[in-house]
Amino acid sequence: MSVISITDVLTGKYPVDETITVHGWIRTRRDSKAGISFLAIHDGSCFDAIQAIVPNELDNYQTEVLKLTTGSAVKVTGILVESPGQGQSFEIQATAVEVLGLVEDPDTYPMAAKRHSIEYLREHAHLRARTNIGGAVTRVRNTLAQAIHRFLHSKGYYWISTPLITASDCEGAGEMFRVSTLDMENLPRTDKGEVDYSQDFFGKEAFLTVSGQLNVETYCCALSKVYTFGPTFRAENSNTSRHLAEFWMVEPEIAFADLAIAGDLAEEMLRYVFKALLEERADDMAFFQQRVDKTVIDRLNNVIEKDFVRMDYTDAIEILQNCGKKFENEVFWGVDLNSEHERYLAEEHVGGPVILQNYPKDIKSFYMRLNDDNKTVAAMDILAPGIGELIGGSQREERLDVLDQRLAEMGLDPVDYSWYRDLRRYGTVPHSGFGLGFERLVAYATGIQNVRDVIPFPRTPNNAAF
Amino acid sequence: MSVISITDVLTGKYPVDETITVHGWIRTRRDSKAGISFLAIHDGSCFDAIQAIVPNELDNYQTEVLKLTTGSAVKVTGILVESPGQGQSFEIQATAVEVLGLVEDPDTYPMAAKRHSIEYLREHAHLRARTNIGGAVTRVRNTLAQAIHRFLHSKGYYWISTPLITASDCEGAGEMFRVSTLDMENLPRTDKGEVDYSQDFFGKEAFLTVSGQLNVETYCCALSKVYTFGPTFRAENSNTSRHLAEFWMVEPEIAFADLAIAGDLAEEMLRYVFKALLEERADDMAFFQQRVDKTVIDRLNNVIEKDFVRMDYTDAIEILQNCGKKFENEVFWGVDLNSEHERYLAEEHVGGPVILQNYPKDIKSFYMRLNDDNKTVAAMDILAPGIGELIGGSQREERLDVLDQRLAEMGLDPVDYSWYRDLRRYGTVPHSGFGLGFERLVAYATGIQNVRDVIPFPRTPNNAAF
Repeated sequence: MSVISITDVLTGKYPVDETITVHGWIRTRRDSKAGISFLAIHDGSCFDAIQAIVPNELDNYQTEVLKLTTGSAVKVTGILVESPGQGQSFEIQATAVEVLGLVEDPDTYPMAAKRHSIEYLREHAHLRARTNIGGAVTRVRNTLAQAIHRFLHSKGYYWISTPLITASDCEGAGEMFRVSTLDMENLPRTDKGEVDYSQDFFGKEAFLTVSGQLNVETYCCALSKVYTFGPTFRAENSNTSRHLAEFWMVEPEIAFADLAIAGDLAEEMLRYVFKALLEERADDMAFFQQRVDKTVIDRLNNVIEKDFVRMDYTDAIEILQNCGKKFENEVFWGVDLNSEHERYLAEEHVGGPVILQNYPKDIKSFYMRLNDDNKTVAAMDILAPGIGELIGGSQREERLDVLDQRLAEMGLDPVDYSWYRDLRRYGTVPHSGFGLGFERLVAYATGIQNVRDVIPFPRTPNNAAF
Repeated sequence: MSVISITDVLTGKYPVDETITVHGWIRTRRDSKAGISFLAIHDGSCFDAIQAIVPNELDNYQTEVLKLTTGSAVKVTGILVESPGQGQSFEIQATAVEVLGLVEDPDTYPMAAKRHSIEYLREHAHLRARTNIGGAVTRVRNTLAQAIHRFLHSKGYYWISTPLITASDCEGAGEMFRVSTLDMENLPRTDKGEVDYSQDFFGKEAFLTVSGQLNVETYCCALSKVYTFGPTFRAENSNTSRHLAEFWMVEPEIAFADLAIAGDLAEEMLRYVFKALLEERADDMAFFQQRVDKTVIDRLNNVIEKDFVRMDYTDAIEILQNCGKKFENEVFWGVDLNSEHERYLAEEHVGGPVILQNYPKDIKSFYMRLNDDNKTVAAMDILAPGIGELIGGSQREERLDVLDQRLAEMGLDPVDYSWYRDLRRYGTVPHSGFGLGFERLVAYATGIQNVRDVIPFPRTPNNAAF
């Protein structure tokens, strides 16, 4: 027998005038002069708490009920009634209150009922899900994740769990974390005096992956429609509001598809997940709208309703050069655009999401498909008003000779890419894909500024606490 | 415009006698003496290939069609007709065949159309999804993953992405992988001559997690019903068919729940996902039944139909001691049961799944709830016929004084568990959960013996290829 969720009680799934039992934590307790206590009890199943009205006739009213403080855990039995009060649908006339766990020294309880700064909450990451904002972020994050799986599954995409630990050095080890079981105080050495990785767990140097893309391409070239949804890692020493050392990525990969198809899928997916969010988590979104960012719901509706504008990089450069706005960073053909440029395009020039595509090949990765102009590659970034880049993608170079030429141009050794090259040797097909940083999506959807506040336990330089 | 999936064609989603275009790879080509070629084309969207009948009138019949070999990629346009042949519903009378990618040197193509050993396929992990078994495993794995998310979401559980990198040493670093960005050839040293981890990326020693459980408990004690579904790591040097260095775990955690509720949830979940699998992937399951394990569908139906038998560890010991069977490992109260014992209980004694519970405290973890007998803890293992342990779980010790006593007994420092202890200091509640090794589930559901063959790129001692 499992317990009743408060969301089910508040949405009328239980008949009134019958006795029910709910479990949860005290958000607030208010005592009337008439000898009645009002407990607001939440269990995290939705934003709202349910009110329990506790009469002083209860045996443990003086000894226990009056000691309940924010965060105390209780089991409350009583009669479910329609609430006469505003803003709440149902309440409970308690006939029994059982205390499950009190708060030790309520005066020093880190999550006491007052406003905490978001930085303070981050330092108490093990308790912050108990707050309004922490609970709301968690539910929104879950809703977005479920919607992504649901959307891609319904379109026939298969979820592929690409490896986290990799001995391939495909994207440059400089920004990767090493994974090892060698005894650091006593490293084995080769005859030449170098660290002997042949004695390490995997028999060679191993790292944490920065992307599942190359691996998932192998599955795309067999199952046509696939995606990853898993953690990726960057050992960049960036202390910004947009970077984490450990974050989750969604990477769909589509066979027999050019860049336009990948762009269409991204557009459809964003629209689907934001729609699901507004429908399924109206309670939490109302909170974000009210307390975090007054524009957040409009922003999501903007993405849902407006067609994404496709724009070539070359055209964007022209627009930026002629717009009359002074940017901190110079704009010229060949430059990697900065956030200020991206936001200008999305926010001011278009006023909605933009798919910027066909970038100069020299600022993009070796695996992106060379366009016929020999200068640009079939790459795209999706820029959203209010955040800038949300998605990056490309058509992949499926022609072996062109791929090899690009590897050579970039000084990469084809031997390191032998398995990736095999995909082009054996039944190669045009294919495209993109990557969505999941924490950026959650930040975008909630209006929260820092990605550290939308992942349960953020990992950043000098911090892997909990 | 996205491409048509062959599964949609074969299941009648397109009208007959109209022209369609499909994309895919050649499974086989057969040429009749009458000058017609039969191409079996698959795109991974389902087990079956679609047959395209190609007349020799096509312009490129001699130059291209007759060169198509297994693994070649094609785009075929033609008229969809009902198939007169057995075992296929529809076929295509081709009016155009476009070659997208041939197979370089078909004689050495690693996935040529013949039977390959499962070990051979493992060595070619980047291509094995192209085989019948590789495709089927991938689709089954996806179906099980989607069903798990769907089931838990529908029951009000929130997915929590617990961290992969951890500086907590909660489960013993001996079996953990170190994560570091220190220069191994030039390690920084403290004054005492030890490795100076304060200069490492996270400012201290960091590892890959072995379980998200302790972290997800923090979310359970705020949102009541939560789960993890993510990768975990073990640096054990075990070369067995049941162990991976990197594997995926599902860990539901339920507040206000005792061990019985966790057992009920596990039972309901297994039943749900196996039912979904049999319904949604009848094609792949027929293949596994025919080619891998003749009992696999019966086995799943057995789990779906039979109530799981609950049995106390103490009773199990008595059964094993009195059953008259000779085991390799001695059976006595206090022993950690071996696979031979577990399989006897599930396969021979019960003939169905068993939830074995209330184990001696000395063979279990510190966080498991001490029973009133002071000798056992509220832990469970779910044993399934044909594989042994599939799930391990427990009620968690919610009483701070008992938890501290258990930590002391096990020589663990409460300071290392301060954030975990906070959950017991502030509104503690009874809670329970379990862990399901996802690869074991996929192996169980397919009859495949080795977990290395049910994850795309297995990581094991001396192997992190691709």
